[in-house]
Amino acid sequence: MSFRHTIRRRVNFAETDLAGIAHFSNFFRWMEETEHSFYRSLGLTVHSVDQTIEDGRTGWPRLKASAEYRLPLYFEEEVEVELLVAEMRSKAIRYDLRFWKNPDDPAKKKLAARGELVVVAVRPDAQTREIHATAIPNLFRERITPAPPELLTSTSTTLP
Amino acid sequence: MSFRHTIRRRVNFAETDLAGIAHFSNFFRWMEETEHSFYRSLGLTVHSVDQTIEDGRTGWPRLKASAEYRLPLYFEEEVEVELLVAEMRSKAIRYDLRFWKNPDDPAKKKLAARGELVVVAVRPDAQTREIHATAIPNLFRERITPAPPELLTSTSTTLP
Amino acid sequence: MSFRHTIRRRVNFAETDLAGIAHFSNFFRWMEETEHSFYRSLGLTVHSVDQTIEDGRTGWPRLKASAEYRLPLYFEEEVEVELLVAEMRSKAIRYDLRFWKNPDDPAKKKLAARGELVVVAVRPDAQTREIHATAIPNLFRERITPAPPELLTSTSTTLP
Amino acid sequence: MSFRHTIRRRVNFAETDLAGIAHFSNFFRWMEETEHSFYRSLGLTVHSVDQTIEDGRTGWPRLKASAEYRLPLYFEEEVEVELLVAEMRSKAIRYDLRFWKNPDDPAKKKLAARGELVVVAVRPDAQTREIHATAIPNLFRERITPAPPELLTSTSTTLP
Repeated sequence: MSFRHTIRRRVNFAETDLAGIAHFSNFFRWMEETEHSFYRSLGLTVHSVDQTIEDGRTGWPRLKASAEYRLPLYFEEEVEVELLVAEMRSKAIRYDLRFWKNPDDPAKKKLAARGELVVVAVRPDAQTREIHATAIPNLFRERITPAPPELLTSTSTTLP
Repeated sequence: MSFRHTIRRRVNFAETDLAGIAHFSNFFRWMEETEHSFYRSLGLTVHSVDQTIEDGRTGWPRLKASAEYRLPLYFEEEVEVELLVAEMRSKAIRYDLRFWKNPDDPAKKKLAARGELVVVAVRPDAQTREIHATAIPNLFRERITPAPPELLTSTSTTLP
Repeated sequence: MSFRHTIRRRVNFAETDLAGIAHFSNFFRWMEETEHSFYRSLGLTVHSVDQTIEDGRTGWPRLKASAEYRLPLYFEEEVEVELLVAEMRSKAIRYDLRFWKNPDDPAKKKLAARGELVVVAVRPDAQTREIHATAIPNLFRERITPAPPELLTSTSTTLP
Repeated sequence: MSFRHTIRRRVNFAETDLAGIAHFSNFFRWMEETEHSFYRSLGLTVHSVDQTIEDGRTGWPRLKASAEYRLPLYFEEEVEVELLVAEMRSKAIRYDLRFWKNPDDPAKKKLAARGELVVVAVRPDAQTREIHATAIPNLFRERITPAPPELLTSTSTTLP
């Protein structure tokens, strides 16, 4: 049972903008990249190439996504993306994400951004092809568990 | 004084994912595209090529960005992105954004997603080059005003 | 029968990089955006949501894509993308693309970049699901024709 | 002196399109990602955060970029991107790139795509701010050398 996962990521040139920093939309791609890496670390995937296996047809659209930005990330800077399972519901999972600058230096490690991702399990109706929320597949439920509350303590940003 | 702006946008092939719908990260790019189009409609820009003009050096990083997704958008589907000024603070602006399917057919017009964007005016310190929140430039303040509260009524999504 | 199509496009903030110009990878997305807009102008599409219609299952992967860059494109600059049909083969179409700066001012109109796109019609094998090159669907062949040679005259870039 | 570099890359969800494969525009981002990783492996960078160091103001726009696609890449598939220095000119470098499927299994290793990238060293004119091609900085010239011709043997794709 796992509730935490991290990846390391360098800011690519194509991810910067004319302000010289990583464009804010990329943080959402990195959240998903970390989420999918989390699943892989547990032997899971959101999309099996073999669509005949059990749970193979469950989709995982995003219901909510949000980010708060504190410090810019620069070209070639290495960032650690930390994912924590904030909540397991019957059909949805809520993730808490943190983007860490200088991840290897405890004295300089700083929060660049925080994010939240709510993903929902869906299945297409056999006839209408419309998708409907469905119970989280057992393989996911057996391997994913919420993080201890003390890891999830939030620090919100005040508007200037 | 303006508080509302809309653009039309077709979902490009490169913006779809293997689930056959627009990838969720694109909504954040479309929010910003609408915001910048709003500024242009008022004769404003977040980045003047001529950096010597007044206000030319003000930057507009994002402080917060969030989205709630309700209905998928498909390849080549035309979506209307509607921006409303939700709040003008001394140094920040909060925008409310809505993504409309079938924008030309009142009977079929439906909300695909909602979003929020908080942007903050910043200026680099002349010496350290560090950026600091600063007062919203006058040109922006003179032309942008909050939308009437009745336009901003929120309808939040409940998790399944 | 058509052999030419143009779209107008403004450079979005997210498409710029830290060098302050449109990132080179975006030109490939704009080529495809223009190609698909060309098809729509002819009542065609590369992907019908209704997969039961004739030709609905034909896919159009890219076989080759290239670009030569001459002048940078800046944030909010309007560019005209011009597509010309360079060649119709039995199973593939080759397009010639040009990116024009200042498209409305004949005195200042300049070529920012040129590109080439070769796309091939494919169909999945019913059994193996592997895709194979197939004849261009009739609807495409009836409406698309090569541009007159004099429009395609090439001017190649020499390496510095 | 180095002439070859490889990176490993997994296809992210956001990089797939509705055809279920990596969108062709991503290959150009991966080429650049590999190029910049090559420089880092040699202690070089195309953009120093400290713009006061020697060579810090040299930019590296792309002059040409091209790709030929042979086999699709799927979600979560691991690809090896191989970069070879094809040519060192006075002001430009030409790279040959290959995208390998199943990179760890010699029996199943296959070419998914080939690419070419021509990058040119530029410096801004102190007065006009216009950029001009310039000699490749010494640090780059001392550490980068063309690959042996036998590594560069080309196999071109014929149109169907």
